Amino acid sequence: MHDTTLPAGFIEGCAAILGDAALVRDPEAIEPYVTDFWGQYRGVTPLVLRPGSTAEVAALVKLAAAHGVALVPQAGNTGLVVGGIPDQSGRQVVLSVQRLDRIRHVDPSGDHLVAEAGCVLAEVQAAAAGIGRLFPLSLGAEGSCRIGGNLATNAGGVNVLRYGMSRALVLGLEVVLADGSVWNGLRPLRKDNTGYDLKQLFIGAEGTLGIITAAALKLAPAPNEVQTLWLGIDDPRTAVRLLTLFQQEMGELISSFELLTSFGVEAACEHLPGVRRPVAEPHPWHVLVEVAWSFPDGLRDRLEAVLEKAFEEGLVQDGTLAESGAQRDMMWRIREGQSEATRHMGFIVRSDVTVPISELPELIERMQAWVGPAAPGVQLIPFGHVGDGNLHFNFVTPPGEVDRLKPVLLDRLYEEVGRLAGSISAEHGIGRLKREAMQAGKSEVELSMMRRLKAAFDPQGILNPGVILKTE
Amino acid sequence: MHDTTLPAGFIEGCAAILGDAALVRDPEAIEPYVTDFWGQYRGVTPLVLRPGSTAEVAALVKLAAAHGVALVPQAGNTGLVVGGIPDQSGRQVVLSVQRLDRIRHVDPSGDHLVAEAGCVLAEVQAAAAGIGRLFPLSLGAEGSCRIGGNLATNAGGVNVLRYGMSRALVLGLEVVLADGSVWNGLRPLRKDNTGYDLKQLFIGAEGTLGIITAAALKLAPAPNEVQTLWLGIDDPRTAVRLLTLFQQEMGELISSFELLTSFGVEAACEHLPGVRRPVAEPHPWHVLVEVAWSFPDGLRDRLEAVLEKAFEEGLVQDGTLAESGAQRDMMWRIREGQSEATRHMGFIVRSDVTVPISELPELIERMQAWVGPAAPGVQLIPFGHVGDGNLHFNFVTPPGEVDRLKPVLLDRLYEEVGRLAGSISAEHGIGRLKREAMQAGKSEVELSMMRRLKAAFDPQGILNPGVILKTE
Repeated sequence: MHDTTLPAGFIEGCAAILGDAALVRDPEAIEPYVTDFWGQYRGVTPLVLRPGSTAEVAALVKLAAAHGVALVPQAGNTGLVVGGIPDQSGRQVVLSVQRLDRIRHVDPSGDHLVAEAGCVLAEVQAAAAGIGRLFPLSLGAEGSCRIGGNLATNAGGVNVLRYGMSRALVLGLEVVLADGSVWNGLRPLRKDNTGYDLKQLFIGAEGTLGIITAAALKLAPAPNEVQTLWLGIDDPRTAVRLLTLFQQEMGELISSFELLTSFGVEAACEHLPGVRRPVAEPHPWHVLVEVAWSFPDGLRDRLEAVLEKAFEEGLVQDGTLAESGAQRDMMWRIREGQSEATRHMGFIVRSDVTVPISELPELIERMQAWVGPAAPGVQLIPFGHVGDGNLHFNFVTPPGEVDRLKPVLLDRLYEEVGRLAGSISAEHGIGRLKREAMQAGKSEVELSMMRRLKAAFDPQGILNPGVILKTE
Repeated sequence: MHDTTLPAGFIEGCAAILGDAALVRDPEAIEPYVTDFWGQYRGVTPLVLRPGSTAEVAALVKLAAAHGVALVPQAGNTGLVVGGIPDQSGRQVVLSVQRLDRIRHVDPSGDHLVAEAGCVLAEVQAAAAGIGRLFPLSLGAEGSCRIGGNLATNAGGVNVLRYGMSRALVLGLEVVLADGSVWNGLRPLRKDNTGYDLKQLFIGAEGTLGIITAAALKLAPAPNEVQTLWLGIDDPRTAVRLLTLFQQEMGELISSFELLTSFGVEAACEHLPGVRRPVAEPHPWHVLVEVAWSFPDGLRDRLEAVLEKAFEEGLVQDGTLAESGAQRDMMWRIREGQSEATRHMGFIVRSDVTVPISELPELIERMQAWVGPAAPGVQLIPFGHVGDGNLHFNFVTPPGEVDRLKPVLLDRLYEEVGRLAGSISAEHGIGRLKREAMQAGKSEVELSMMRRLKAAFDPQGILNPGVILKTE
């Protein structure tokens, strides 16, 4: 039993608030709450709390504050940086928001909805679709990730170019603060300049400044025609020039603009069932573009005109438009199956970096020039969201070499990203996994500002300690 | 001389940092820095500082911190809530950022530019246009307001529906903190989830948490076809239904969706030179819609099809599309000349409120039902950004009655806005003018969070004290 690691009376207090059924104490039942998405990290806790209302969350936090117990807020537990599972101490208690799963309100004008933190992202999307609107946040884990976690990590996904990160989709928040008080900031307003915009504090703070219990979310018009285009191109510089052309010609309609390597595309064709290359020949690089609008038709002609221009300017070697939903799905399967497909070639070292869009080719060229002599046998697979300046700059390492190479490859990548004024975490966050790398890359001024925020909003350090910032 | 109100040695220290030429001490030269935009408020100061670089701003703040001198950061001084001029004490010194007026960098991919805080908004727009892009922030004062002030107040304007508030246009900031240290957060990244998003703290904080000295600003594709539509309608409920229809049919292309009263439109036709009603007959309410896209043509046909649908559904009584740039300008002249035109009818009491879009008709109806019996002779003129839920809910008061009626009208308006979960400042901010009204409308939890932020980032209270929050 780990229970002895918690102060006397704490568990009894939790049971008095929640009832025994909402306390998880059986080690086997605890397992899914302490294991991370990729199954690579495992935390330790004697207790998982499953409150069913904001008032219960508030009472639990008040109790934890009184006993000095650390809480790890958790939603869908699909994060990729070990930000939602406890550390090894056995003294951190998981507070799961999964039972806060109501859509509280859908606005009749179609302007917004209010969802509790434990709503699965796909359910939020469905609630928006139910009134003919779009909730644009979309990512691989949408069937199991939960909106509270999406907001706490400021999740990105495949529609950022057009709709922005999660932050851009939030009108208001309800948050339980570190002393157990409840901030009702759920005002569903498009504009509100009454003092400091406090909701911004909690979005992307990974549960370290407060626990998000509900959110007023902005909805967008639903697109009625979607067109998907696959291009074969020569190099990343051409990809950025193509993006500029598309921005000029139809910028407001671009939802996705994704870059892929020849290696990654061929791997997908070889290893993913039913997948074949959308264009006849292999090309050094490929681009996947998706555009959409509210009208029912006419977009295809517009897109073809832009494509013609791209051919005339010599930017594109080959290209094809998806002729059916099945063909569109296959294009996206290649894009989303990059990790899965390349895993057959060796062990993957993953990353999630951004640089200013104009510097993307430079980053790729520098890493290519370095990797050959410095890490022979390593294959670079930089792919992802060119339109956001964001690459999942992955590496395939030879068998048995991954442990030695991983720090070497990531150190060099982060170094080059730093030189190009970039970021080592575009959309995944910091968690416990990137904490040291983040601290190495930030100025003392910036780190001190972050510590000041943490001290102001969680002076006892009971909210997700060790995530983002080291505990003192 | 007011100089004796400042601690000994402070002015000499400033002169040593800046040279005498950048200190303004002559009362006549000080006048424009202490008078607000509408000429209704006048502050007192013995000294205006005009640094020419971020390093000079930092040195001045360090000196002010050492001497405990309060600084009032000021950019274009076009604010409407007395947030950028000193109080009556004579002990607050104005720090003008007007000489920080360089565009530091325009990104070759057209993705962003970096501007110093003193750049006039129109110059930032021109720099974007120079590379075929749009910097979408646009408002009446754009020829004289400066970007540092726009960001410090999270300015809104006529393009919010499509592009968001100023906050949505910022990629990174450079800020001088209250201890004189410089935070270089100018990373021009579309995505950066490395810890707390510190720039959000300073946007909309009205210079009370730090002094913005430069910003990396996001650019948008420039539209190539713009269509402007004028409609006559029956009531505000119809305006919201029309907005919903336009959102469904062509949502991503709407830049503006503005509501006007019959009273306001007729006043414009009577009092503004060269203006006539765009539709033949007067209507109880009017709507101005603007849509735009990147393509050179085809939008007019699309808009006409939506308009036909609106007629079929009985939402619209009459409507006309602008046939020329001159006609478009006239439509906007009516919209932007509302205050000017209605001033001929009496003294105007202004406001700037938001409610959830679906509640706009309710707000108008409640105020209409109240004003007749409670304040006879007062004319309601609620107009503005329906697409943002934001009305400039103005009142025309009979001669000699304004001083008595102003608090009565605003108290009632703010009360109803509060009941509908709205905001008493949509886009103007709080400054000194709305501080008490803001405090009356916010919970103690929220006010305490705001005070905690202020204490964490300006523990001495030297940055714009008395703005947003009362000084302790």
